[in-house]
Amino acid sequence: MTTAIYPGSFDPITNGHIDVLNRAARLFDKVIIAVLTNPSKKGFLDYETKLNLIRESVKDISNVEVDSFNGLIVEYAKKKNAQVLVRGLRAVTDFEYEMQMAQMNKNLSPEMETLFLVSNTENTFLSSSIVKEVSMLGGDISKLVPESVNNYFNNLNREI
Amino acid sequence: MTTAIYPGSFDPITNGHIDVLNRAARLFDKVIIAVLTNPSKKGFLDYETKLNLIRESVKDISNVEVDSFNGLIVEYAKKKNAQVLVRGLRAVTDFEYEMQMAQMNKNLSPEMETLFLVSNTENTFLSSSIVKEVSMLGGDISKLVPESVNNYFNNLNREI
Amino acid sequence: MTTAIYPGSFDPITNGHIDVLNRAARLFDKVIIAVLTNPSKKGFLDYETKLNLIRESVKDISNVEVDSFNGLIVEYAKKKNAQVLVRGLRAVTDFEYEMQMAQMNKNLSPEMETLFLVSNTENTFLSSSIVKEVSMLGGDISKLVPESVNNYFNNLNREI
Amino acid sequence: MTTAIYPGSFDPITNGHIDVLNRAARLFDKVIIAVLTNPSKKGFLDYETKLNLIRESVKDISNVEVDSFNGLIVEYAKKKNAQVLVRGLRAVTDFEYEMQMAQMNKNLSPEMETLFLVSNTENTFLSSSIVKEVSMLGGDISKLVPESVNNYFNNLNREI
Amino acid sequence: MTTAIYPGSFDPITNGHIDVLNRAARLFDKVIIAVLTNPSKKGFLDYETKLNLIRESVKDISNVEVDSFNGLIVEYAKKKNAQVLVRGLRAVTDFEYEMQMAQMNKNLSPEMETLFLVSNTENTFLSSSIVKEVSMLGGDISKLVPESVNNYFNNLNREI
Amino acid sequence: MTTAIYPGSFDPITNGHIDVLNRAARLFDKVIIAVLTNPSKKGFLDYETKLNLIRESVKDISNVEVDSFNGLIVEYAKKKNAQVLVRGLRAVTDFEYEMQMAQMNKNLSPEMETLFLVSNTENTFLSSSIVKEVSMLGGDISKLVPESVNNYFNNLNREI
Repeated sequence: MTTAIYPGSFDPITNGHIDVLNRAARLFDKVIIAVLTNPSKKGFLDYETKLNLIRESVKDISNVEVDSFNGLIVEYAKKKNAQVLVRGLRAVTDFEYEMQMAQMNKNLSPEMETLFLVSNTENTFLSSSIVKEVSMLGGDISKLVPESVNNYFNNLNREI
Repeated sequence: MTTAIYPGSFDPITNGHIDVLNRAARLFDKVIIAVLTNPSKKGFLDYETKLNLIRESVKDISNVEVDSFNGLIVEYAKKKNAQVLVRGLRAVTDFEYEMQMAQMNKNLSPEMETLFLVSNTENTFLSSSIVKEVSMLGGDISKLVPESVNNYFNNLNREI
Repeated sequence: MTTAIYPGSFDPITNGHIDVLNRAARLFDKVIIAVLTNPSKKGFLDYETKLNLIRESVKDISNVEVDSFNGLIVEYAKKKNAQVLVRGLRAVTDFEYEMQMAQMNKNLSPEMETLFLVSNTENTFLSSSIVKEVSMLGGDISKLVPESVNNYFNNLNREI
Repeated sequence: MTTAIYPGSFDPITNGHIDVLNRAARLFDKVIIAVLTNPSKKGFLDYETKLNLIRESVKDISNVEVDSFNGLIVEYAKKKNAQVLVRGLRAVTDFEYEMQMAQMNKNLSPEMETLFLVSNTENTFLSSSIVKEVSMLGGDISKLVPESVNNYFNNLNREI
Repeated sequence: MTTAIYPGSFDPITNGHIDVLNRAARLFDKVIIAVLTNPSKKGFLDYETKLNLIRESVKDISNVEVDSFNGLIVEYAKKKNAQVLVRGLRAVTDFEYEMQMAQMNKNLSPEMETLFLVSNTENTFLSSSIVKEVSMLGGDISKLVPESVNNYFNNLNREI
Repeated sequence: MTTAIYPGSFDPITNGHIDVLNRAARLFDKVIIAVLTNPSKKGFLDYETKLNLIRESVKDISNVEVDSFNGLIVEYAKKKNAQVLVRGLRAVTDFEYEMQMAQMNKNLSPEMETLFLVSNTENTFLSSSIVKEVSMLGGDISKLVPESVNNYFNNLNREI
């Protein structure tokens, strides 16, 4: 059985992430989407909210598990008996950072493999930070994120 | 009549911005240079200072209006009956960010067009942040920025 | 009146080119799509075929003129009283080549302006060379090119 | 059973390719390394030589099949019941070309997935073309390619 | 006598920096490794710690001097009678930032030359920030940094 | 004594090359500008013409020697007792190719150092191929190349 881990900050999860996740779930027996909770890297959303929004968004994909981790991703992967890390790729600046992380993880754990998946073209320019910015400025994000995330941000805006 | 908007943080305006603005002013009936004033993105200069420095720098270009905005740029553009957003391009990292913003704005307002203009070669490596850094360290920025900006930063340094 | 020139080899014209052309036609009074016919740069299609395929593809855009040129684009633009060159931008490698050409053209003709337009996301990865390759290998290009081009390549394949 | 295809021109196969192949062979039940034989893309080596050099280099990896194909890779993959295309990634220019091909293949066959694997750092700057160039100029390529390829090029050089 | 300066934040110094320093020390009569101490750019390590870790790491290279500076690097270089600035290059994003700085320094001091050196391939993906991140998460950095830095970070982790 | 080699195809030499050469000549005791004459890489100019144009262009720099070479650059450098290869850097695509060559040369000859120098901003977008293209189309290249090259191309055009 091959288990893959899809790690990230998911602040919040977008349609681009969901697309990568769906692809990974077709390729591997089990995919764990794992939210990074290192206290030094605070996001906009707290991690319980992130987990809830992800759980709602992925409930229809049967072989996906939602989890959180802190510490080194390669240590977490070993604990979960996962052989593969899955990452999405969009732009050149992504590419360089991801190469750096992939090489470092290979250094720390040579048997771990990092796989890069490409999202659909309509997600090429989509990112969590642009979603937050557009929503905070009153823009419509309903075509960019899962329904649960859209509802959450709409409620946030109403409260402010 | 075609109205173009040249949005940015202009923290401070540089000779590269002035060059892009001059080119846009030759192409369109009216160009509005619009300073972003979202409270979550504090710059080095407060926005009144930015506006004053810009006003002095562009007073000789007849079809330029200086303004500020907050919220979504596409909403501001609609209010101003502008059809075009103008952006300058320098480096690969610029390019990727600008593509992302252009696609997002097209998503939010399909009839809005983003045009990229290229500055003169001598401005290829010029940015607001490098201007601030050089000036704060006591370097001469007189060839990099309009006279009003140079005077302002020289006074700042004298006070400190 | 502002006249823009959209130069290229268009070997063949794709939906990405048509998209850029439509955007330019909304911004300027007249757009000339100009096929480069320098004898040292032979394409796959001869230039009469290119012109015919373009004419059929753009016949519904009223302010577009189809033409060919050889020699320096800035000389051709002067002859046509055009003030603007229009170019599409997709990837980083495009970006660097286009910057080089834009700076060279500014050098040769300082009053000429190069404007970059961004195509829709679905065209981000589309190019004339990939269209030719896919079609020659028997793939379906009907969603990538105008109808006239699709018919032309289908006939070509039938003959072979 | 998941079958992956690793397509390429392999002109010649290098240690970088072997590294990517080994990684893919650990992840999937079967990996087909498939040499492109389109007559319009002649390489330095003829395709029988390429196949022989690959066969010798991969004979110790049990779940690898060596094959050739022409036409569209997605059609070949369907015929082989393969769900996955595997590609190696090194540099930014690679990245952009590979993204273009991945999007085109997704267009032609939506259920096909392209996976990118990263080679070891020592292979980051290794390519078939640089191997050929170094060998033709009399340089030592023994640390860059499998033994069979090294022997073949040494014999070539002796004959010339 | 040619004196070169290798400026940086060295937060902490890595094997990649040591490699660049060794290369520079073979090319020039004297190399000054100079730690930037501008108060507005606080690092993880205080600058006395940085200097001590560097001194221990380079004590076997005879023509290297360890120093710190604030203000403009070109002013510091003049004071030290240095004609050359040395910088390492790894990735595209490095490259663009370094080009910008090199052009700005040439602007401020035309006779100053910036030289770029390339580190060994195994250091291509190594950076101070990734070293800190891995160490703070409990990973082994002994192959990435000089012994003194490794000991320092191990002690830090033990204390926390 | 430190000898540096500045290798290239120089087809033709441009003001960008001259600028890099001047900088190298200030840093090293001797600089050999070495024209690659591998028969498999035919340029536009034959190599005797290239050498003559270079000799005329650099006759005022006292510590520059003009030469040609074939075979591996690292072998040629050893024969000339040179410790350093000098290269110019302009764009991202340059950067990746140059990194690949630098790593390969380090592989073939570990004691050889490749140094990258940055040309003036006005040369950032200048290349031999764009110079040829502009001249062949009747454009003025007098500000882009040394006088000898400009005269040579003007004569060529007159003859055609």
